[in-house]
Amino acid sequence: MSNLLSQPLKVINVGIESFGDGIRASGGQSVQVQWRPPAPISAQARDKIRAHADRITAANAEALDKLQQGKPVLKGMGVALDVIPGMKKELFLHAGPPITWDRMCGPMRGAMIGAVLYEGYADTPEVAEKQLADGKYGFAPCHEHSSVGPMAGVVSASMPVFIIENESFGNRAFCTQNEGLGKVLRYGAYSPDVIKRLKWMEQTLYPALKAAIELSGGIDLKSIIAQALHMGDEVHNRNRAGTSLFLRALVPSLVRAVEDRQVAAEVIEFINGNDHFFLNLSMPACKASLDAARGIEGSSMVVAMARNGTDFGIQLAGTGDVWFIGPALVPDALFFAGYSKDDANPDIGDSAITETGGLGGFAIAAAPAIVQFVGGSAGDALNYTLEMYEIAVGENEMYRIPALDFRGTPTGIDAVKVVEKGITPFIDTGVAHKNAGVGQVGAGVVSAPPEPFVKAVEGLAATLVEF
Amino acid sequence: MSNLLSQPLKVINVGIESFGDGIRASGGQSVQVQWRPPAPISAQARDKIRAHADRITAANAEALDKLQQGKPVLKGMGVALDVIPGMKKELFLHAGPPITWDRMCGPMRGAMIGAVLYEGYADTPEVAEKQLADGKYGFAPCHEHSSVGPMAGVVSASMPVFIIENESFGNRAFCTQNEGLGKVLRYGAYSPDVIKRLKWMEQTLYPALKAAIELSGGIDLKSIIAQALHMGDEVHNRNRAGTSLFLRALVPSLVRAVEDRQVAAEVIEFINGNDHFFLNLSMPACKASLDAARGIEGSSMVVAMARNGTDFGIQLAGTGDVWFIGPALVPDALFFAGYSKDDANPDIGDSAITETGGLGGFAIAAAPAIVQFVGGSAGDALNYTLEMYEIAVGENEMYRIPALDFRGTPTGIDAVKVVEKGITPFIDTGVAHKNAGVGQVGAGVVSAPPEPFVKAVEGLAATLVEF
Repeated sequence: MSNLLSQPLKVINVGIESFGDGIRASGGQSVQVQWRPPAPISAQARDKIRAHADRITAANAEALDKLQQGKPVLKGMGVALDVIPGMKKELFLHAGPPITWDRMCGPMRGAMIGAVLYEGYADTPEVAEKQLADGKYGFAPCHEHSSVGPMAGVVSASMPVFIIENESFGNRAFCTQNEGLGKVLRYGAYSPDVIKRLKWMEQTLYPALKAAIELSGGIDLKSIIAQALHMGDEVHNRNRAGTSLFLRALVPSLVRAVEDRQVAAEVIEFINGNDHFFLNLSMPACKASLDAARGIEGSSMVVAMARNGTDFGIQLAGTGDVWFIGPALVPDALFFAGYSKDDANPDIGDSAITETGGLGGFAIAAAPAIVQFVGGSAGDALNYTLEMYEIAVGENEMYRIPALDFRGTPTGIDAVKVVEKGITPFIDTGVAHKNAGVGQVGAGVVSAPPEPFVKAVEGLAATLVEF
Repeated sequence: MSNLLSQPLKVINVGIESFGDGIRASGGQSVQVQWRPPAPISAQARDKIRAHADRITAANAEALDKLQQGKPVLKGMGVALDVIPGMKKELFLHAGPPITWDRMCGPMRGAMIGAVLYEGYADTPEVAEKQLADGKYGFAPCHEHSSVGPMAGVVSASMPVFIIENESFGNRAFCTQNEGLGKVLRYGAYSPDVIKRLKWMEQTLYPALKAAIELSGGIDLKSIIAQALHMGDEVHNRNRAGTSLFLRALVPSLVRAVEDRQVAAEVIEFINGNDHFFLNLSMPACKASLDAARGIEGSSMVVAMARNGTDFGIQLAGTGDVWFIGPALVPDALFFAGYSKDDANPDIGDSAITETGGLGGFAIAAAPAIVQFVGGSAGDALNYTLEMYEIAVGENEMYRIPALDFRGTPTGIDAVKVVEKGITPFIDTGVAHKNAGVGQVGAGVVSAPPEPFVKAVEGLAATLVEF
């Protein structure tokens, strides 16, 4: 025993966190088990879930298997109006669950104004805003049109999108090209330089990438994501490796497909200047994989987690197209100079599709740099991932974490486990200014709110009468 | 106490390793302290070293400071004969300390034969070998011509080389372009396809890269290495991130500089197909940085560690151009199908310049994938790096390891500590077949032999009379 006490301590602390602080302060390691009392669900729902536990387990195994089988490949590009199912002129897709103009947060309103200007439906932000407020346009979640969008996630008819096909099941997912950081549409900025960049992306970037992707014969995104996890990315808030590997895969075809060398160089420099370029490929890769796991009766596996900056919504494999909603929370973040948490909009974007697919916050042990910038250590990063195994259906067969001896990432969020254990998904995220027109103000981490999971489990319980 | 025993164990084991096996087998963690009795140095040398301990410490601090200040930048390319100091026709540079034909190992002889054929001095391997055996050509260590070469490290007059400048001190280092894996010159292969590839590298790859590098204005290798350590590389045996980041930095200039798009695409594909391409840049980056730390009286810091496949040689900052030699050992490795340790040549190459500069095996905590392929765990990778702090002069200010909370890598090997603690440098390495003409048979890890360090400390002691 005295020998034991002379070793570095490694302690698992349950309950009051300050017990662990003392151990850490004296140089030991302490893992905080983030135990909270189970979120309250109705006794009736709880009993039904327990009675059908075996059925739910089997359905979740089936859902996870579908997810694991997914083979997302970047097959081409097209204009939203031409390729996204149900896309129309004067329809604007957005991140998160459905929302009306009156409840939209600042950055989403800003992005809508920008998209109206981009489409040429209005000449000034004031006119655009009035049209939007007057109900001139339609709104719909990206998720309901096989799409995903980071942050505000606004997609309009003329925007070029990547086409990702899940080759195992034939379903497709779509996402716009990533604009870079700072004052960009997806963070709610709509100034003339934002619109000008979007036009360059439509007229120069898009044709070059489209030609290169087609010449390449398709780019295997699952392989790039798997490698990126071995290279310090969790492919949500850190995409430097993914962007580098994507560029390596693309550039030979780009050089061959684009006659104008100046244009090819500009395209490469644009991607080089934006380490998040790959985010708009990792997201639809997850979307395409998760959509194949929809419609499995009895499954409590989450197939979408998405925020519109006001509400946080989820969908389950076993509950069809119903959204279960709770309030979006404000992330803990590293803020850019001059900004603070007071400026931050609540959590926004479809990018939590990465966590839903076993990446992002679930794989953060692969990317300790992200935890470091909000004041955490490499050990904290490991612990966040370890905690997510508690609420996962299983472990990923392809996406693995070097620091955990190449253990598969926790994959497939089980809403029942979330509710029973009181542990909600851990999410990496960018942070938008709460006002329209400003843009990004930071990047950080946030835990999902419990409410959508409680409602989802109750919703699933309601379907169980049919068995 | 009973609470303590219910936690996961983390044990430091000194002495018999099997004590730790039991702890690991039951799911605990055990760090093995690799203590060995100090290597024997003469009592006279030991006393002198101890008497001058403060002087040596100060000299090592100065040497480490020079190393830390290094700013290696890829400035251009040239042909060996034109740019390497002292290079001549019919002179062949090689890896490691000086060696004569009769003592050269198989792969180095094979590379020499290949280089004679490449230069057109002979038409057949048989003629080339006879000329070499007859003493028709000169041999010299790369290190004595401001150069480094991986594995056999053979450089001949017509070979194109990268020019790396240490911008802080103005000194330069040189290295050939990496050929890829398998049957390649540096592993001792010399078949017609090997020579054909070298000719393509001279006539197509080189002019394109030279033009691109010049147009780029120079590529900061220190920055790429620092980032690669955050992306799963240790930039010796794993260079996937470094190669990716280098390609990102290079490609815009390449596209602009090379008129023929087919050639540009071929060049990109060649680099894409070879994740070790960056090794031939990380090595001279370390060489350029370490050469600035030479000639510091009293310093026991190692400025070169190099193997010719027969001997393992080192040089110290405080002992001028003297090589201290011991036998090269055979690495533990993952062998390609059909090969075993019986086929392996002893450790070969100048690539241990990366370990000498605080990278490679010293940074292996950044690249657990390397340890995994020889049967180790991520924890073993951490432990190897942690052990190297024991023999390092200090910690790197620029090169940092995420899994160690961005602690600087152990940097600057102190030969006195190596001898006193009986811990020799841990080195990652490729493995060549012991016979000429075969090529690579595996990749693995090896510890440096103690003899060169013992001799080096005795050599340093001999200089201390002058104080």
